[in-house]
Amino acid sequence: MRKTNRRQALRLGAALGSGFLVRGEESRKLGKPLSGYGERSPFVKSARTTRVSRTPEAGSSATPLAETYGVITPPALHYERHHSGVPAIDPSSHRLVIHGMVERPLILTMDDIRRLPSVSRIHFLECGGNSGGEWGPKTGADVQRACGLASCSEWTGVPLRLILDEAGLKPGASWLIAEGADACRMQRSVPIVDALDRALLAYGQNGEPLRPEQGFPLRLLTPGWEGNVQVKWLQRLLVTDQPHMTRDETSKYSDLMADGKARIFSLPMEAKSMVTFPSGGQRLPGPGLYEVTGLAWSGQGRIERVEVTFDGGTTWQDARLDEPRFSIAFTRFRLPWRWDGKPVTIASRSTDESGYRQPTREELIAARGVNSIYHFNGIKFWRIAADGSVANTDA
Amino acid sequence: MRKTNRRQALRLGAALGSGFLVRGEESRKLGKPLSGYGERSPFVKSARTTRVSRTPEAGSSATPLAETYGVITPPALHYERHHSGVPAIDPSSHRLVIHGMVERPLILTMDDIRRLPSVSRIHFLECGGNSGGEWGPKTGADVQRACGLASCSEWTGVPLRLILDEAGLKPGASWLIAEGADACRMQRSVPIVDALDRALLAYGQNGEPLRPEQGFPLRLLTPGWEGNVQVKWLQRLLVTDQPHMTRDETSKYSDLMADGKARIFSLPMEAKSMVTFPSGGQRLPGPGLYEVTGLAWSGQGRIERVEVTFDGGTTWQDARLDEPRFSIAFTRFRLPWRWDGKPVTIASRSTDESGYRQPTREELIAARGVNSIYHFNGIKFWRIAADGSVANTDA
Repeated sequence: MRKTNRRQALRLGAALGSGFLVRGEESRKLGKPLSGYGERSPFVKSARTTRVSRTPEAGSSATPLAETYGVITPPALHYERHHSGVPAIDPSSHRLVIHGMVERPLILTMDDIRRLPSVSRIHFLECGGNSGGEWGPKTGADVQRACGLASCSEWTGVPLRLILDEAGLKPGASWLIAEGADACRMQRSVPIVDALDRALLAYGQNGEPLRPEQGFPLRLLTPGWEGNVQVKWLQRLLVTDQPHMTRDETSKYSDLMADGKARIFSLPMEAKSMVTFPSGGQRLPGPGLYEVTGLAWSGQGRIERVEVTFDGGTTWQDARLDEPRFSIAFTRFRLPWRWDGKPVTIASRSTDESGYRQPTREELIAARGVNSIYHFNGIKFWRIAADGSVANTDA
Repeated sequence: MRKTNRRQALRLGAALGSGFLVRGEESRKLGKPLSGYGERSPFVKSARTTRVSRTPEAGSSATPLAETYGVITPPALHYERHHSGVPAIDPSSHRLVIHGMVERPLILTMDDIRRLPSVSRIHFLECGGNSGGEWGPKTGADVQRACGLASCSEWTGVPLRLILDEAGLKPGASWLIAEGADACRMQRSVPIVDALDRALLAYGQNGEPLRPEQGFPLRLLTPGWEGNVQVKWLQRLLVTDQPHMTRDETSKYSDLMADGKARIFSLPMEAKSMVTFPSGGQRLPGPGLYEVTGLAWSGQGRIERVEVTFDGGTTWQDARLDEPRFSIAFTRFRLPWRWDGKPVTIASRSTDESGYRQPTREELIAARGVNSIYHFNGIKFWRIAADGSVANTDA
């Protein structure tokens, strides 16, 4: 970026600000005292938005990704997807049972689990239904509605491999049925061979115990897979030789193709990205220099490249990626941009370390049709009008 | 770790847990509904502890590091050190003034600042007075009291270099006087040449705006330097050709040596570490396998090595370091350990990428005497008694 561009951006500021000296006197009073557990400023209002559902206990709420910084999502804003509400679990009475096709069934307390060797890793989670509305015809008006069912945290937990080594898998054991302690006892079938290298029994999130909405005191974490399989309030792992074909892997979280057949156990979340600034609902104050920014992620590993278009997808230029880039985690991208005040259509597309590149919406529909609401990872375009307002392209 | 050791740890769990099936019925009720902004579980009670001071607005509160996971500190538990309380600042009226020996004085709004190119980085902050009590004779009884004035966050902000390039330094400009908007208008003098490569004007912390206790809406961040110089509620940067010798860099935050002379502007925080489990105040339930864990950090770059002793410092073995290791950030170390039930004295020592190795308390005192309460980074020993109780070695 040239220095002259930066000057132009800052001159805007230098022209403002006469209120500075006026404010001086009144804030000479002592401020708030020390506290045991802090709260955010009352001037900060970011909130999850709730999607309509028949009951407030079964539905989802979306992270305001366009209002977050860096790659860490504040736990209070981590997206939610519940099927029967958030249970209030006393960790001292919680148990994890591991049984079925194992040599040594186990019943573990949280103290037992926390005593075991653990790891901490930064990973995103994304609901399989994130961006479901993007299949069309009416797409999300802002980032929160278009792809807010994704968040990123530092997770701490015990490798699943350690627990299963201890229980001892019997010959033929190939699936885990993971069960939550929520009222619906949500269950998902997990292929053991694919889970062993990645899965954790997670009890920590961004340095503190899991938030209740994220499965306190224990959840299954299978980084890179759709959120629903990362069973919260985990109370049971039944080892079997076949999946149980539960509600959430048959009528839900399966992808009905155009030919009437369904993809099931389509677990990995593929490479995706979205420009979060400028994005739908925001307004640019006028022509000048801006930093375009957004988030990219892939369930298949590290993000290797993010490109940004300013002409609706005809040409693309590389954005700068924040380092270090974690595997299966949000990656922040940034690109200086001088807006000349003319209407423009912007978007980003990401490529992960497997070489997979985020497709266009049209490519995705050609491959999968529009019967499914799951696993949408198409490129999202934002339209900036001459007045600086930003909207989705079908607004 | 051998599998037989792991089995022993888990057998403990398998012997417990008859409460599991009993609990089944009562939790079939729907749980809490979706929410806009979440809260932690009421069963989680971790809190900052407040140090005694003459007024609750001037003092410090310490992060319960032994109760955190991974390397990220929850913002609600980030350590505090205030000199006149936490001001309640409306970001829409907040201004940053840059003046003095500059070509173009600037008055910036928060909107101006957030519009500029920014970066996000994970860094620890540590109060220069952290572990002050460890100079002796009575040292901290637990991790929180021994070194809780240190925390680690993902920070987002604008590089200081960009702002100063824009303002244009006049010949001879070599110091910044940074001033906060708290009631005492806390000021610190910052050497520009050393700050340029590292400093940010930070407005984001772990994905959300700074917490009020951390300087909302804006703070100076100079990674690796003592916390006090990272001025919170930043409202002014005065560019000068000399330091102002403010209260907090003369009577405070300077190190009185044994010969009566004082080290001043001793900004870098040197390599340090502490075992957080097992640590003072905890109790091991009995002999068996444990994972020793703790945190290490250095203001001079990445942690390259952490060693743990189980014999009071006679022999040391390498701990495993969580990856990736960030520069000037907490690094989590872990080491499996089998306790035979006999009394043992444990500690950790860290080495950073500069080759500097954390000293013993005795080495530190030999070099600096005991007149200063600042910059203690000596090795901290914990004594595990035969009954499993853990205490500091002078208990």
